[in-house]
Amino acid sequence: MTPALAEWFGAARARIDMALGDVFTQSWPQPFLGALNYPLTTGGKRIRPAISMAAWQAVTGGPIGDAPTAPGVAVELIHTYSLVHDDLPAMDDDAERRGRPTVHVQYDEATAILVGDALLTEAFTVLARSGHSPETIVSLVAGLAAAAGHRGMVGGQMGDILLGASVDTVQGLQDVHRRKTGALIRWSSVSGGQVAGAERAQLQALDVYGSAVGLAFQLADDVLDADEAEDPNGPPSYVRLMGIEETQRQAAALADKAIEAAQTLPHPEMLVALAQFTVQRDV
Amino acid sequence: MTPALAEWFGAARARIDMALGDVFTQSWPQPFLGALNYPLTTGGKRIRPAISMAAWQAVTGGPIGDAPTAPGVAVELIHTYSLVHDDLPAMDDDAERRGRPTVHVQYDEATAILVGDALLTEAFTVLARSGHSPETIVSLVAGLAAAAGHRGMVGGQMGDILLGASVDTVQGLQDVHRRKTGALIRWSSVSGGQVAGAERAQLQALDVYGSAVGLAFQLADDVLDADEAEDPNGPPSYVRLMGIEETQRQAAALADKAIEAAQTLPHPEMLVALAQFTVQRDV
Repeated sequence: MTPALAEWFGAARARIDMALGDVFTQSWPQPFLGALNYPLTTGGKRIRPAISMAAWQAVTGGPIGDAPTAPGVAVELIHTYSLVHDDLPAMDDDAERRGRPTVHVQYDEATAILVGDALLTEAFTVLARSGHSPETIVSLVAGLAAAAGHRGMVGGQMGDILLGASVDTVQGLQDVHRRKTGALIRWSSVSGGQVAGAERAQLQALDVYGSAVGLAFQLADDVLDADEAEDPNGPPSYVRLMGIEETQRQAAALADKAIEAAQTLPHPEMLVALAQFTVQRDV
Repeated sequence: MTPALAEWFGAARARIDMALGDVFTQSWPQPFLGALNYPLTTGGKRIRPAISMAAWQAVTGGPIGDAPTAPGVAVELIHTYSLVHDDLPAMDDDAERRGRPTVHVQYDEATAILVGDALLTEAFTVLARSGHSPETIVSLVAGLAAAAGHRGMVGGQMGDILLGASVDTVQGLQDVHRRKTGALIRWSSVSGGQVAGAERAQLQALDVYGSAVGLAFQLADDVLDADEAEDPNGPPSYVRLMGIEETQRQAAALADKAIEAAQTLPHPEMLVALAQFTVQRDV
């Protein structure tokens, strides 16, 4: 990460973490409050909110301190609920996430199911009460629900379970990833343009950017986990299907495609830096 | 149920069942489609959509065939997802609902978790794409998310788990029910007014109506299940705390309160009939 991106990312994260801390400040019954906030305070990278805020900056040129946080908070609530439900014993059965017990281990399964449901629901409260124009809010709600729902993230999770081990083509793997992880990243990019009042061509550029970065992110993940991804008995991966060099090449090509789309916008600096980081990161 | 109400209810149900059948018409991966529709076709009473459509009629006087279905479909999606998650082994662990295997029995737990998540998310797609004015949609989204979320239904479910067995006052029981079941019924009533373009005083009357009917519904449930509700080792119930006669008396008083509020609206007939049915039903 370049020093300029690191400084910007620190400011973006601080802004989102503060906004996330304001989502659940009271609850009934009172002990529920701790469980609601627990998965939101695990030190996530906040990459989706960062993309949303960078997209707003790319259109407006405004400072990060003025970037609207509602889309970023909403997408992070959706991303976080999906992790809480994914970690459940009936799903991936993970006991730890980022070095801490998962919600169902720290509390119990029923609490984890309800925390996930509450986070998912609250994403739409955050959008509805964001203060943007009613037209913008309706676009945000429609877009986030589509990205998160049965034709987006949840469909991708179901596809991963139903098809997962049997996927044996790059296209098949992309069909899963475009939904499971790609849809939310794509929406993050477009949402930043929507709250910036972007024109149609700008929204299309942000759509191309988000789609390309979302897929590049997944390819880069496989390269980072190459040991695991090369395992012939492991789950399907780009590295196993194409080899590590071709995976790296395609990730770089997707980042270039994203950067090209970003450069049609007036202030693309941070979108460009984020796209480069996506394929060059070592975490 | 009076013949007039039965006829009206049949028309309302047919309308909602058709609209619910249009929610999930394709999915990815394709086998997910059956699981998404499975819990929506169990022959539910559709009481919440019926209240929403009756509220629209109370304000507009329009025929049931013209009543907007989006709020009713959205609230039924939320209600249905909550049943799917409630039935999970970690929650109530129910193997049957309305004579059919529950979703996690028919499919598996992971599918049931994801089906619930998809239904919840889709409720907001339905509202966002309803074609109502952006201002109305924003009110609907904000209201439904509040009613369904951590300060509404999900909070009530958590309260039921955390406090459930220890609740020993009528007030404490109402605190749970107002959220767990009351909030969605209340929203159903108000939402019908919102899509009717109701004035503030009319929305307030629908709020009073929905709150009273929601609580009356719960009291009447306890009277219907009086054998179980009187069990000194069973969960807390109004019948156990107040006796069956006082529970009946309070349910009737709440229905009267609801009817009084409805009668301030131009065309209250079906709201009145639904309130009477709530406390006189035998199912």
